[in-house]
Amino acid sequence: MTYCLGILTKDGIVMAADSRTNAGNDQVNTTRKLFTFTKPGERAMFVACSGSLSCAQSVITLLRRSFDSGEGLASCENMYDGARLVGEAVRSVAKLDRDHLERDSMNFNVTLLFAGQIKGEPPQLYMIYPQGNPLRATEDAPFLQIGEVKYGRPILDRGVRFEKTSLQDAARYALISLDSTMKSNVTVGPPIDLLMYPTNELDVKRRRRFEPEDPLLNDIRQRWDRLLRDAVTTLPMINLIPEG
Amino acid sequence: MTYCLGILTKDGIVMAADSRTNAGNDQVNTTRKLFTFTKPGERAMFVACSGSLSCAQSVITLLRRSFDSGEGLASCENMYDGARLVGEAVRSVAKLDRDHLERDSMNFNVTLLFAGQIKGEPPQLYMIYPQGNPLRATEDAPFLQIGEVKYGRPILDRGVRFEKTSLQDAARYALISLDSTMKSNVTVGPPIDLLMYPTNELDVKRRRRFEPEDPLLNDIRQRWDRLLRDAVTTLPMINLIPEG
Repeated sequence: MTYCLGILTKDGIVMAADSRTNAGNDQVNTTRKLFTFTKPGERAMFVACSGSLSCAQSVITLLRRSFDSGEGLASCENMYDGARLVGEAVRSVAKLDRDHLERDSMNFNVTLLFAGQIKGEPPQLYMIYPQGNPLRATEDAPFLQIGEVKYGRPILDRGVRFEKTSLQDAARYALISLDSTMKSNVTVGPPIDLLMYPTNELDVKRRRRFEPEDPLLNDIRQRWDRLLRDAVTTLPMINLIPEG
Repeated sequence: MTYCLGILTKDGIVMAADSRTNAGNDQVNTTRKLFTFTKPGERAMFVACSGSLSCAQSVITLLRRSFDSGEGLASCENMYDGARLVGEAVRSVAKLDRDHLERDSMNFNVTLLFAGQIKGEPPQLYMIYPQGNPLRATEDAPFLQIGEVKYGRPILDRGVRFEKTSLQDAARYALISLDSTMKSNVTVGPPIDLLMYPTNELDVKRRRRFEPEDPLLNDIRQRWDRLLRDAVTTLPMINLIPEG
């Protein structure tokens, strides 16, 4: 399983991804799920992926190949066109693999997040469905998730606002959301890749991998646990006095 | 959709259920999903149900019929036998309806929580699967959920402990867990039925229905939202200083 999320605020973008993959319970590995495509000063783009690792890798390979030759994400004029290029890569891999997967009752299930900024535009965040079509995050729905999305959603629903949430707080929400998911589903696991992108930086300069025993991550986890438990005890009494 | 949960602590049991049912988006109704079977001073039992309303209703009808005639849950000697009786009721309804559902590609998907106490035993909490087999909550896994379980789980994972959590706090966790679920999935909705059972009360005396505009429920929701947002801002800084 996988859990990746992207948060878009007026100050920029936060993206985060776990890095556990499993093909059955006895084949658990670590793999990077967060990739960057940058031309400093001109464009900075980030892709996170969920679904079959094999197919997701192929999508990233196609995107990287065209980028490295100065095409694709290296030359698209705007983020919408970039999102469409990611969708085309998904469709190319589907054309290669989908029939063969379905013959053995497996789904073609690659879903991606695509985010970043091209000079002249505001930052944008998209989800690319397995069918290749893009969904854009908006001021009303400023975060997008892929993979094991439910456990980590309530804290985002409560706290993340496009106008009000600072990039720093967005990063905290992202780590808490990932931590909540890891606590409830062991197939989502560290290391965690976190990326903060301030609007107009047009490069990837703030990126960190949190290993399982990372002191900052552990500090945040322990504090959050304690804060939540303490908060519960300060809520109003629920007095259900015997009726009889 | 439905969300019900049961929490077992050393002090007793908390059960809670939403009451929204929908057969498609244009047929949304309110229905009770939490039922009690009591013989004061001797036994107090609670059933919550999820899955097809039609089939769940039939299970409750069978349980109520035998209880009212002094059999079934009215006379079983212990909670394990009670859990098995609930499972038998599920299997009886499956025998009536399952083939007919499957012919039209629908699942027989009734899942129940069964909890309570019979004099001479400690309180117990079970989940009854659609196949009729019971799973018991333990000191290590003291809560059980049915229906839309994921959104409301992280807060329970973080806070609920058999030995440490008071019945009062368990009720707060239950309401927060339901509230988190309702925020993220509109097909789970109020009113909320909440029941607190202190060990050895052997009757249902503490029960309350929270309507959508219930002042206590709204107070808890608003405070919890604020507490969470404030807590996030007190977490350590996530300083990803530019590498370059």
